[in-house]
Amino acid sequence: MGKIKLTVAYDGTDFSGFQHQPGKRTVQGTLEEILSRVTGESVAITGAGRTDAGVHALGQVIHFETSAPVPTERWVRLLNASLPRDLLVTQANEVSKEFHARYDACWKHYRYTLDTSPIPDLFRRRYLTHYPHPLSGDLMQKAARHLTGTHDFTSFSSARAQVKDRRRTLYHCEVREVGPGIFSFEVVGNGFLYHMVRILAGTLVDIGAGKIPPDAILGILEAKDRSAAGKTFPPEGLVMVKVGYTPWNCGTVKKNLS
Amino acid sequence: MGKIKLTVAYDGTDFSGFQHQPGKRTVQGTLEEILSRVTGESVAITGAGRTDAGVHALGQVIHFETSAPVPTERWVRLLNASLPRDLLVTQANEVSKEFHARYDACWKHYRYTLDTSPIPDLFRRRYLTHYPHPLSGDLMQKAARHLTGTHDFTSFSSARAQVKDRRRTLYHCEVREVGPGIFSFEVVGNGFLYHMVRILAGTLVDIGAGKIPPDAILGILEAKDRSAAGKTFPPEGLVMVKVGYTPWNCGTVKKNLS
Repeated sequence: MGKIKLTVAYDGTDFSGFQHQPGKRTVQGTLEEILSRVTGESVAITGAGRTDAGVHALGQVIHFETSAPVPTERWVRLLNASLPRDLLVTQANEVSKEFHARYDACWKHYRYTLDTSPIPDLFRRRYLTHYPHPLSGDLMQKAARHLTGTHDFTSFSSARAQVKDRRRTLYHCEVREVGPGIFSFEVVGNGFLYHMVRILAGTLVDIGAGKIPPDAILGILEAKDRSAAGKTFPPEGLVMVKVGYTPWNCGTVKKNLS
Repeated sequence: MGKIKLTVAYDGTDFSGFQHQPGKRTVQGTLEEILSRVTGESVAITGAGRTDAGVHALGQVIHFETSAPVPTERWVRLLNASLPRDLLVTQANEVSKEFHARYDACWKHYRYTLDTSPIPDLFRRRYLTHYPHPLSGDLMQKAARHLTGTHDFTSFSSARAQVKDRRRTLYHCEVREVGPGIFSFEVVGNGFLYHMVRILAGTLVDIGAGKIPPDAILGILEAKDRSAAGKTFPPEGLVMVKVGYTPWNCGTVKKNLS
């Protein structure tokens, strides 16, 4: 009863993205259908951010209003009993009427992971982008350091992006080799433009492969031109890890990246 | 050219098992289709063992004969370029005319993994059986020790199994807690009856939950009656890890379980 905030995880492989589209299987559509069935009401949800087709989430956040008399601690089990295997509710909280999943978000944490092994790890294949070529983690990490801070990210946004103000602040940007040949690109920011993380990933790969030097990323930022940056990398390596509702501070980096 | 042995990995979720069935998507059917397309010949394959619908493999082995002039080292890349994302060739070797993937197998290693966390790990959910109840790894390991050796496994085989001699030798049988609340049941044997590992898993869970004591497994073996054992656990937690073509020896345990 009241306003409920849910943290949801999904395997984006078999969804046509987060946002509702008639006739397509979407995260929003699936959640609204199950919530409406469970509550007996017509439920509309609002998400912290849209994820594209094929992009995964471990900590997407949504809110909805309901008059169903469900105790807060019951929502997780109740919904998971009806949700398909690739969509999972991990937390439910009652929130104030003022809470808004999108407007109140202070930061989002995305992770892009590449598998450079010659033969991919089958059981992680849905969640990693397979790129079977050698990459230098050091070069990518050097470039990633330049991205922290407030910049105009026009070069790293799809030409289709409609938004005018393309300045965003990245609080944390790091490339780590998390396993043999597995590179993880972690980025935390106050907002992201359309395709931004996937274009950043594609550009970092050009740097890791030695095609352009790490410092070139500064010129790409300055160019404010999509064609200056690298390819838009595929969705499967991308995960929305977490959405934060209190201001970011560096002390939380370790906790959030673990 | 000649006889080729392939090691293949697959995510069994979206296959109706290994063995060819008309009108169904099977591992054998998919491999034969791609091999026939790539070689321009009608190719039939033989697998080391059949896996049921939903069961995965990291090291299934198959053989086939071909007159296609493909250098041995080219097969892996050639086939993976055409195979769907849930089916992967990890190794190719030319073998002698006498080699037979099923008859020559000395042992098979299966792994059954249970996730007892209240909320499953989304990205491992396709590969673990979710059983959100506390289990004792110690009790399960005590029972597992009794299974090593040669026994009549009638109690642990489906009533539908047609085979007469139900004695099998288990070389290794171990339960380990591989992560918080994640229990992995590793079993290596010279052969397995229909549903045997899944019934062993269901019975070990009864023991881990304290419903029956670890020593009860001896009485269950002696009963030679399917109804004495536990439930047949679901396929998603089961993986065919490896097939061995040289006699099992204890020194290889660590290497194979890593």
